[in-house]
Amino acid sequence: MSIENHRRIVLARRPQGEPTADCFRLETVPVPQPKAGEVLLRTLYLSLDPYMRGRMSDAPSYAPPVGVDEVMCGGTVCRVEQSQAPEFKVGDVVLAAAGWQELAAVPAKGLVKLDPQAAPLSWYLGVLGMPGLTAYVGLLDLGQPKAGETVVVAAATGPVGSTVGQIAKLKGCRVVGIAGGADKCAFAVKELGFDVCVDHREPDLKQRLAAACPKGIDVYFENVGGEVLLAVLPLLNVGARVPVCGTIAWYNLTELPQGRDHLPFIMRNILVKRLKVQGFIIFDHVHRQADFLRDMGEWVRQGRIRYREDVAQGLENAPAAFLKLLKGGNFGKQVVKLSPA
Amino acid sequence: MSIENHRRIVLARRPQGEPTADCFRLETVPVPQPKAGEVLLRTLYLSLDPYMRGRMSDAPSYAPPVGVDEVMCGGTVCRVEQSQAPEFKVGDVVLAAAGWQELAAVPAKGLVKLDPQAAPLSWYLGVLGMPGLTAYVGLLDLGQPKAGETVVVAAATGPVGSTVGQIAKLKGCRVVGIAGGADKCAFAVKELGFDVCVDHREPDLKQRLAAACPKGIDVYFENVGGEVLLAVLPLLNVGARVPVCGTIAWYNLTELPQGRDHLPFIMRNILVKRLKVQGFIIFDHVHRQADFLRDMGEWVRQGRIRYREDVAQGLENAPAAFLKLLKGGNFGKQVVKLSPA
Repeated sequence: MSIENHRRIVLARRPQGEPTADCFRLETVPVPQPKAGEVLLRTLYLSLDPYMRGRMSDAPSYAPPVGVDEVMCGGTVCRVEQSQAPEFKVGDVVLAAAGWQELAAVPAKGLVKLDPQAAPLSWYLGVLGMPGLTAYVGLLDLGQPKAGETVVVAAATGPVGSTVGQIAKLKGCRVVGIAGGADKCAFAVKELGFDVCVDHREPDLKQRLAAACPKGIDVYFENVGGEVLLAVLPLLNVGARVPVCGTIAWYNLTELPQGRDHLPFIMRNILVKRLKVQGFIIFDHVHRQADFLRDMGEWVRQGRIRYREDVAQGLENAPAAFLKLLKGGNFGKQVVKLSPA
Repeated sequence: MSIENHRRIVLARRPQGEPTADCFRLETVPVPQPKAGEVLLRTLYLSLDPYMRGRMSDAPSYAPPVGVDEVMCGGTVCRVEQSQAPEFKVGDVVLAAAGWQELAAVPAKGLVKLDPQAAPLSWYLGVLGMPGLTAYVGLLDLGQPKAGETVVVAAATGPVGSTVGQIAKLKGCRVVGIAGGADKCAFAVKELGFDVCVDHREPDLKQRLAAACPKGIDVYFENVGGEVLLAVLPLLNVGARVPVCGTIAWYNLTELPQGRDHLPFIMRNILVKRLKVQGFIIFDHVHRQADFLRDMGEWVRQGRIRYREDVAQGLENAPAAFLKLLKGGNFGKQVVKLSPA
């Protein structure tokens, strides 16, 4: 087999505020050759996730940024095309972090072999992967929901929010989702089994959220920030838990917004209500991976956890799909299908 | 003994913003008569604490407000003058919550008998009382400091801050205090044994605090809010703990301040550094009282925890002392001595 060139997408420039298409550049480059201990991977599915916005900036964060002119990072499901590592053979399908490119030569160490019979392969980028583990750890370990409590989660039809809400239902909680648009809200209630889903694009979010949470909020799984957080804070109960997973509403800020300073507001809520507000990054919780795969695998097999994907076709469409994701334009977990499995 | 009248201080009106002397009214009223199961108490010492500012307002909080024309609330050390309860006799000294008044008829249930030989009686309002327990629980249970870590606490010469810092030193931490004025800073270092104490009244607080914390901050015991919190946030390390005990800098706010909104700033810090920010109210932690009295009693007897008081004389001076306290004008735990023990 002669492979000479492949395509990749690099970070062309760092965004100021909202990223635009010209932050990315599609390149055609020679195929890398795997060295001893490496494999050559062909990307089948690329995961697009909000955290990638952070990697495009060089502000200090929990992970180093993607360099300008470097391949955009990202989780992938790949097929082994060539192997210089005894533990993998051609045709194996693996979970990798090959980034936004069609082919990659990577060390075999760290790759996880996937069973194509167990679940659709792309699900390992979502409900059975990093977003699923994020939901599992954030809700169960940090949120510690008890039966009868009210759990609120935004981005309710996304891979994290939808999983948080469905696990909370399994634990006997009242689950209130927040999503953008009537279609998503209907999906959250009818397909995912949320008790209520509030559309944040309609006016009077605070009042409608309050009406949806007559007993207040015991767990707020924070993945958006912004106006949703301001609507949630007054409704939190004494002893509420707030696992902080992301704040996508603010990812494009170039400076702190002018207006009211809500720092005294959140601190007063934290104090008076004895809140526990805790940030987490999933890499700190990989010791829960086995528990997660056991529980989530079973829930998915039993149909107790449902999962929706939004699939873009072809590497060249990854930037547009990512920009849409940042605006909440996706409906379900955003992946890009690069190559037929 | 014929007692006909006594003096008390009531809340005359609710403050708008910073309280003033006319929020209080000194009254002379008939002495109450204890009923069956009650005792008549004479206040020896009255405790003045920042939380009382909250009770003057009727904004929702963790405790109901003091009513207008009602006696201001407060912890007290009292002597039993008359007893209609078999478990107390005249002359017993007790810890009570008799408020800002010279005499009070209160149920015997809930009173704690004090040993006048064990420690100066007023200390049960401070290092051996609610502020001491607040420091103990907030630092040890929520802050969980480890030897070699850096602990930062403001109001460093107050009853909570001074105790937090000294316990942290006993646990092998580097302790950085923040206080207002050179005298307090010198006291924190020379008398309390803090490693450094930074004067928040001098310019460039952020830079000076950063210089005092070359390894960042692992535990920030939050009791002030305001500019100190903004200086602390950038210095917090990954995994830092922030027990939230109070935010005195904001207690007089009548509305959220205009300017930069720091909500995205704190949420980003919480997320990226996986902070644990947790509010607490000491009433939720009374199960630690026995451990606290055992440990703190021993530390105080051994001279390993030192304690400073600021004693006002006479009930009539309580309002002025309290207003001074809200501006950080006290130096050490503020109490009012009402009557010779």
